[in-house]
Amino acid sequence: MYLDKSRPVGVFDSGVGGLTVVKEIIKNLPGEDIVYFGDTARVPYGSKSKKTVIEYSSQIVNFLKTKNVKTIVVACNTASALALETIEKQTDIPMLGVVHPGTRAAINITKNKKIGLVATSSTIESGLYPELIDEMDPEIKVFTQPAPLLCPLVEEGWTDDEITDKVIERYTRGLVDSGIDTLILGCTHYPFLIDAFRRVVGEGIRLVNPAYETAVSLNTVLEDNGLLNDSGHKAEYSFYSSDDPQKMEKYIDSMLGCPIKELEQIKIEKY
Amino acid sequence: MYLDKSRPVGVFDSGVGGLTVVKEIIKNLPGEDIVYFGDTARVPYGSKSKKTVIEYSSQIVNFLKTKNVKTIVVACNTASALALETIEKQTDIPMLGVVHPGTRAAINITKNKKIGLVATSSTIESGLYPELIDEMDPEIKVFTQPAPLLCPLVEEGWTDDEITDKVIERYTRGLVDSGIDTLILGCTHYPFLIDAFRRVVGEGIRLVNPAYETAVSLNTVLEDNGLLNDSGHKAEYSFYSSDDPQKMEKYIDSMLGCPIKELEQIKIEKY
Repeated sequence: MYLDKSRPVGVFDSGVGGLTVVKEIIKNLPGEDIVYFGDTARVPYGSKSKKTVIEYSSQIVNFLKTKNVKTIVVACNTASALALETIEKQTDIPMLGVVHPGTRAAINITKNKKIGLVATSSTIESGLYPELIDEMDPEIKVFTQPAPLLCPLVEEGWTDDEITDKVIERYTRGLVDSGIDTLILGCTHYPFLIDAFRRVVGEGIRLVNPAYETAVSLNTVLEDNGLLNDSGHKAEYSFYSSDDPQKMEKYIDSMLGCPIKELEQIKIEKY
Repeated sequence: MYLDKSRPVGVFDSGVGGLTVVKEIIKNLPGEDIVYFGDTARVPYGSKSKKTVIEYSSQIVNFLKTKNVKTIVVACNTASALALETIEKQTDIPMLGVVHPGTRAAINITKNKKIGLVATSSTIESGLYPELIDEMDPEIKVFTQPAPLLCPLVEEGWTDDEITDKVIERYTRGLVDSGIDTLILGCTHYPFLIDAFRRVVGEGIRLVNPAYETAVSLNTVLEDNGLLNDSGHKAEYSFYSSDDPQKMEKYIDSMLGCPIKELEQIKIEKY
């Protein structure tokens, strides 16, 4: 299949968390146009069943196809863990999630072969992170902890707060006691809490931010497929959401501060 | 319109929170069959726009109509505040929300005419509680506080926990300082935290649980319309959800412990 390298990169998430991935793409691949979809009407995915997450993700892929994207980044750990394998079959364009890049980075970093993972309940229950790590290095032990309160804490804006530190302390206590030297922040919301995590777990544990690793992987995927946009044009960024886009706009402004080409609400159930 | 009193009462919520209303109905109106719908695939509503909440609520009303309900209880504060006025027009059967009963109870209770309200962001933004209170008694002052972390804390099961007490303390501090003597727990999840609220705000502030008040109102509505089920039969309870009903079943078992006639997943977008 021939794909025009000037076409945009599609990125989607259950809500606004995936904007952390967009931020890394803008920083590391400044030539790429981006079309972002946030499923803000049905957010969050992290407590929902596999079947529902696949259905919702599949509708979003259909929508992004109408935007002529040359690749799709699943910027949501839950959708990457539960749906990527299924939705990949919907299209011929390359697709990548955040789980594989995060996993590879963690494996490269760990010295004592003990990796921790904090994520949503659905991501943990999928078992995908431990499975992938086991395939790549069966000697590594993985310790997991669902952390359902962290997204709401980020959305409440309590990112630098003693209550949040206490919640992180409780969620990570068991992982730290297990002797991990590497911790995967397995939800796109969690990079907002990276300072809080550092405070709580200390310098002895390396933190892996899959958002950054995904941007690096995207670069490789585009390069391998001859799809890197090297036209030197000024990149354009369009954003779509299933709920009123006004709230998302605030996040875009404060996190990305990029010019917005389009911002529109989409009836995603129709796709 | 003639309605058969043996038909069931329809109850819906964005998720499982409305089961607190079902509990009060079972306790106070033991002769009524109940059909419950929890929109667990699209939960929560409390951070979503009015238009989206109306659309989702409207689909649920259409579904409940297929179950031949004789009345519909909107057991979700957000849907009651944002959608009730619109969805009432969809059908001739009596419909009631949780906002009016909670408001009336608070007005009867307050002595110093200062009422506090904790609720989801969308319920607070709707302004419905203060508006209704102002209509009924313009001398009453209402102090509001959005409390988006309380639902996730209930769902995490941290109902008796020092972290939850700290969060409630922060959310209620301003209300307490305003001198309120009555506090409306304006989200169906919050009754799970009633002990925590009592611990934090002390005995001087009366707590209003709209779930209980709604069951009392339902009794009046059914009586006024000649619809109370007085057949003396053993009541039956059916439950439907938009996501996998397995998780909801756990809540039903632990909260209601009632026999379940039907438990089924519904594609609610189709209604």
